[in-house]
Amino acid sequence: MKLLTVDTIAEARRKLLDCVKDRRIPFERVEVEQALGCVLAEDMISPLDIPGFRRSTVDGYAVISADTVGAGEALPVFLNLAGSVEMGKAGFAGAEAAAGTKVADFSIGRGQCAEVPTGGMLPEGADAVVMLEYSEPFDAVSVAVYEPAAVGSHVVQIGEDVRRGAPLLRRGSVIRSQETGVLAAAGITKAPVYAPFTLSVISTGDELVSPAALPGPGEVRDINTWALGALAARSGYRITASQTLKDDPAALEKAVRAAMETSDVVVLSGGSSQGAKDLTAGIFTRVSRPGVFCHGVAIKPGKPTILGYDEDSATILAGLPGHPVSALMVFRTLFSWLALTLTGRREPFPIPAKMSCNLAASPGRALYQPVALAPAGNGYLAKPLFGKAGMISTLTAADGYVVVDLNKEGLQKGEDVWVHLWGEGL
Amino acid sequence: MKLLTVDTIAEARRKLLDCVKDRRIPFERVEVEQALGCVLAEDMISPLDIPGFRRSTVDGYAVISADTVGAGEALPVFLNLAGSVEMGKAGFAGAEAAAGTKVADFSIGRGQCAEVPTGGMLPEGADAVVMLEYSEPFDAVSVAVYEPAAVGSHVVQIGEDVRRGAPLLRRGSVIRSQETGVLAAAGITKAPVYAPFTLSVISTGDELVSPAALPGPGEVRDINTWALGALAARSGYRITASQTLKDDPAALEKAVRAAMETSDVVVLSGGSSQGAKDLTAGIFTRVSRPGVFCHGVAIKPGKPTILGYDEDSATILAGLPGHPVSALMVFRTLFSWLALTLTGRREPFPIPAKMSCNLAASPGRALYQPVALAPAGNGYLAKPLFGKAGMISTLTAADGYVVVDLNKEGLQKGEDVWVHLWGEGL
Repeated sequence: MKLLTVDTIAEARRKLLDCVKDRRIPFERVEVEQALGCVLAEDMISPLDIPGFRRSTVDGYAVISADTVGAGEALPVFLNLAGSVEMGKAGFAGAEAAAGTKVADFSIGRGQCAEVPTGGMLPEGADAVVMLEYSEPFDAVSVAVYEPAAVGSHVVQIGEDVRRGAPLLRRGSVIRSQETGVLAAAGITKAPVYAPFTLSVISTGDELVSPAALPGPGEVRDINTWALGALAARSGYRITASQTLKDDPAALEKAVRAAMETSDVVVLSGGSSQGAKDLTAGIFTRVSRPGVFCHGVAIKPGKPTILGYDEDSATILAGLPGHPVSALMVFRTLFSWLALTLTGRREPFPIPAKMSCNLAASPGRALYQPVALAPAGNGYLAKPLFGKAGMISTLTAADGYVVVDLNKEGLQKGEDVWVHLWGEGL
Repeated sequence: MKLLTVDTIAEARRKLLDCVKDRRIPFERVEVEQALGCVLAEDMISPLDIPGFRRSTVDGYAVISADTVGAGEALPVFLNLAGSVEMGKAGFAGAEAAAGTKVADFSIGRGQCAEVPTGGMLPEGADAVVMLEYSEPFDAVSVAVYEPAAVGSHVVQIGEDVRRGAPLLRRGSVIRSQETGVLAAAGITKAPVYAPFTLSVISTGDELVSPAALPGPGEVRDINTWALGALAARSGYRITASQTLKDDPAALEKAVRAAMETSDVVVLSGGSSQGAKDLTAGIFTRVSRPGVFCHGVAIKPGKPTILGYDEDSATILAGLPGHPVSALMVFRTLFSWLALTLTGRREPFPIPAKMSCNLAASPGRALYQPVALAPAGNGYLAKPLFGKAGMISTLTAADGYVVVDLNKEGLQKGEDVWVHLWGEGL
């Protein structure tokens, strides 16, 4: 058996980044309504002040605050009703081009007020709004005000939500419902979002049949094509091809070469046997230059991972273990991470929890341990789920996983840990 | 001003559930590869044992454990090599129909062993596997074993991953990458998943123009059509129509009636002014029977919320505040919740955190306070984000929100809270 040096996760990640360090990550401009869940590829600067005029946050009367000094329940201040602001109606004080100079189409002077609805524009001269609840029409032309108004009360100032020229959203932000809203407010109908990276999945093994087939003796249905494809899709990759193949070196090499034409990343998930690993390494060496740069990763599960790079086609080659749990864990640790990193996206918030029991780990390999979360008091307990290699049910029962560093011998019951959710987001 | 009774969130939720209590929630069978992120509509029972045969988890030799008793580094046990298991190759011992009775196409007897690769099928007679690392070919027909093997070691038993007839996945599970994997393993190529509920968004206000338009004086771009549509889509609704309309009672009534034909839920997000609220209540009363059943919800922001139901068309009518933050918060609290509840889906895990400062709340209304999360020690601080009504930037800066119960006067600095993520998942 050849004994090759194994990389730590940090080393494997650094080498992966090195492969793509000179690459421009492509992006596309997409209708905002179609961009939900996409990652912004540029900082978005607000082209205008939001709001573009002084808006009332309540139903009430726009007033000059100085006029309301001393108003009280027993002794109201009486103001002359100069008019009523209609929603969406106003005139320009300045040139039409100069945003931020809009005013209502009438102004009020000392001793005057104007009726204004929630969201309505303050007339020029007014500097505050008194709520309906603290005022009362006295007669057709005057209003009683029962409370003094501070300057700016119940008013959103021009640009108070977002100032013109200020960052609206940052590169790397995921577009959620509220981000579509702020883009709408700014009049931005197309957003620059990262194009997905392209990825092919080739699942190999003489024992594999497709999920739709009835396995013969010694055969199993292929899990990795679907599961790795699904995880890749969630992580920002577009699947260009996926197939299940037997361990035939010539056919595999042909499939890898074809996939390299169309993909940024080619994933070959092989058996975890030494023979399958050697097969993968041989193919990667033949099809790529400079070729294999990682012969194993110090991670459990997932050690028999092989990484290579082909400069001509700018393709990363990933030989993942055949065990689905290992394959998914390694993909997440290296390739979900890579997509996040290249797009500047933040890792989803891990959840703080306490270990429900002791957990032993082997030194020299980082342990990625699936756990279930159980609420306990003001937090959670993380309960490890143990399963032999290749058992997929360990992962369907898992809410996430904890990581035990390669220089740690394990975790104590009650120890504080971070649980990385294996959730819908990723 | 009419003073009407306001419902608590619990009351409003109960009334919403009452509307749909007799309804069968429709589901559809979808190719698993297309079902990522969907919610399972039925418990899935495993039609077979996984694995269907005894699999080795390592490269090594299949042995009879009793033969290895006393083996050690100094004094190995020598076994006769009876053959080699090939991946995916084996014969049937029993009838082909009886799953679980498959064995390798040869068997071993006392004193014998067989080479077996990772994932390979154990020959009949063998009950354990010795790793390559603890064994050595001695000559062409015999193997030295340096370690005793316990019964079952390095073997996944038939049905150990999933037993035939056992629950594979539960109704209400969201299909993540690993769920596609377990369905593949079970040979289930189509999954029963809930069909999305249908929903129309009508955003009203004389001040509203479309995001693509240049707002005139006193006008603002409509945020709610996009933002509510996006949140609804994330929550399990399919948007059948969305439009921005002026506050014209006849046009609005016509639009609501048309939307009721095609939608399970019609959302009318109006101005938050009293006039707009009365307009919405009037329309709902005219178009539906039994009509309006909730005239306000004790939630901040979002009190001016109106709910109604029309039995004939089986449509829920929702009059939401015009302020985007209020509209999104109410939608999430009532309608994202409704979709989760009807499909048996679990609420995403809230994150435990400590308040970064005091937070005052008004008694009588549950406060939904947007917060940003900051890592601090073994957990997080939740930092409230304050913004006046209608400021969308409060939500784009927020990672989630905390809820202050309506009978609480606020939160203390350092108090334990749960942060509900306003994330990509929902």
